[in-house]
Amino acid sequence: MSRRHLINDPDDVVPESLEGLALTYPDLVTYEPEGALVLRRTLTPGKVGLVSGGGSGHEPLHAGFVGTGMLDVAVSGAVFASPTALQIHTGTQAADQGTGVLQIVKNYTGDVLNFQIASEIAADDGIEVTSVLVDDDLATASSKVGRRGTAAVVAVEKICGAAAEAGADLATLAALGRRVVGSSRSLALALAAGAHPGDATPAFELPDDLVELGVGIHGERGTGRIPFATADELVDQLVEPLVADLALDGSDPVIAIVNGLGGTYPVQLSIAARRVHHHLGARGVRVARSLVGSYVTSLDMHGLSVTLVRADDELLRLWDAPVRTPALTW
Amino acid sequence: MSRRHLINDPDDVVPESLEGLALTYPDLVTYEPEGALVLRRTLTPGKVGLVSGGGSGHEPLHAGFVGTGMLDVAVSGAVFASPTALQIHTGTQAADQGTGVLQIVKNYTGDVLNFQIASEIAADDGIEVTSVLVDDDLATASSKVGRRGTAAVVAVEKICGAAAEAGADLATLAALGRRVVGSSRSLALALAAGAHPGDATPAFELPDDLVELGVGIHGERGTGRIPFATADELVDQLVEPLVADLALDGSDPVIAIVNGLGGTYPVQLSIAARRVHHHLGARGVRVARSLVGSYVTSLDMHGLSVTLVRADDELLRLWDAPVRTPALTW
Repeated sequence: MSRRHLINDPDDVVPESLEGLALTYPDLVTYEPEGALVLRRTLTPGKVGLVSGGGSGHEPLHAGFVGTGMLDVAVSGAVFASPTALQIHTGTQAADQGTGVLQIVKNYTGDVLNFQIASEIAADDGIEVTSVLVDDDLATASSKVGRRGTAAVVAVEKICGAAAEAGADLATLAALGRRVVGSSRSLALALAAGAHPGDATPAFELPDDLVELGVGIHGERGTGRIPFATADELVDQLVEPLVADLALDGSDPVIAIVNGLGGTYPVQLSIAARRVHHHLGARGVRVARSLVGSYVTSLDMHGLSVTLVRADDELLRLWDAPVRTPALTW
Repeated sequence: MSRRHLINDPDDVVPESLEGLALTYPDLVTYEPEGALVLRRTLTPGKVGLVSGGGSGHEPLHAGFVGTGMLDVAVSGAVFASPTALQIHTGTQAADQGTGVLQIVKNYTGDVLNFQIASEIAADDGIEVTSVLVDDDLATASSKVGRRGTAAVVAVEKICGAAAEAGADLATLAALGRRVVGSSRSLALALAAGAHPGDATPAFELPDDLVELGVGIHGERGTGRIPFATADELVDQLVEPLVADLALDGSDPVIAIVNGLGGTYPVQLSIAARRVHHHLGARGVRVARSLVGSYVTSLDMHGLSVTLVRADDELLRLWDAPVRTPALTW
């Protein structure tokens, strides 16, 4: 049987799903079809605005993270395509409450370019804008354009969101966001690639005995193919390189994000989370907090990513601060 | 490519995933391998205990709903197999804080039998036990053993959990739970069946042009096959019979649960939720609250269920009460 999707017209996937999100969480967010914006229902005067966005197909990212203690505005492009600079500018204007706007941008050429143009237009309008570039994907460490931005963006949005809520200014938030980025690395694997809405064919085919290691969230092929193995063995191959790259030696606690890539059913993520805890525990690294679920997806890709964030008391305190968004609430 | 799962030994799926859940939410729950119990970290003296459980493979149900404002203890059987009466009895003993225990039981023969035996053993121990039977699945309305219990169990656990937290006694909770059950109906469809952990073959095969309507959460075949169509047309075929069976005429608001069956990626659920809102709105039925996500799954089945709960002010107030569990928090 080929791949099928529960959608209407593929061209309507983004607006219809954003509208559905807003109908589901009317107390938290509003949806503006013009610009494909999801906005916090009530903006806080004097608070620095937090704006993020990018291509769709990664839901609940970013619109699912709009709400108290996280983003003010999410800007959605088409599936796997950056929103336009004009969309981002509209979102930036909406987010600005007189104290500037922090852009949280995943490192992809189109996003970087369009957020940059939007920030220049905003500056002409007298809005102060600073960007934090998220580039956590270890699989692309040797890429000319730098590491891709993947699930660490959730940690950046959560932690900067908490600090903004507490009244931090734009410069402080930018420095904080960059500190989270610098402390975060991710790595992903896939058992099956995702397929574009309405397409029967996934982005790539895998034989039954292989797994794609280092896969990206746009169906980008990975760094290589490794033998299909047990969950524990596969998770180890994600965690080992993260520990090495972050030089984790047990002196700092970590936040661990075990993230499903869209078509990964819940039990598998709990089994993977168990191994992340055991693996790190055996190395003397304490998992102080963990987040397990499908947060940064790649359509219906079957696979997962692990993100580790080297933390400290300040980051844990901001991580723990109350948050109320469609996809993350505590 | 055949179906693959990110697991270790298929026999370890249940204990490993429960351990992973407890490692992820150490502030909320504990895991007792003996009995495969997930317990609220801190039980409240004098509060009626809420116990649920059943076969595994439906995660996050039930263990994901243990915590403040919902269950005290979840008892897990093997995949799609009832826990034993002894397991349930151990869970009942653990939940009892001197004011009795409410069992929330989905209507399957094995579960009904084992919860019944456990309640008799508990009675011998001097623990007062009352059961609420959840039987919401409209697809089995003409079955000799009655309707199956599916996603309405989340509403029962949430609403009874809130009332128990507020100090309701056992008889009140049982009456409340039965009222929620009587006000709830569900219907599901699948684009692809799930496969048991470690199996490459799903429970049934579907041709590309058909959808299984009325499917159960154990891979039970549905009431029939209908042509594959747009999300809106398919969702309408779930909502129409629910509206008819509940005789919704706009006089009462509803709680709508749009539930992914395991392998359903997020965007599709938002698109379905949008249609549920529009469909009911056009009939003058107000969706007062909605819950959209994968809460009662069937392994990696690709599909969704819609549950409607005819509500009133009391049910909405209890639905809105604070809850803090791994899978549901507000």
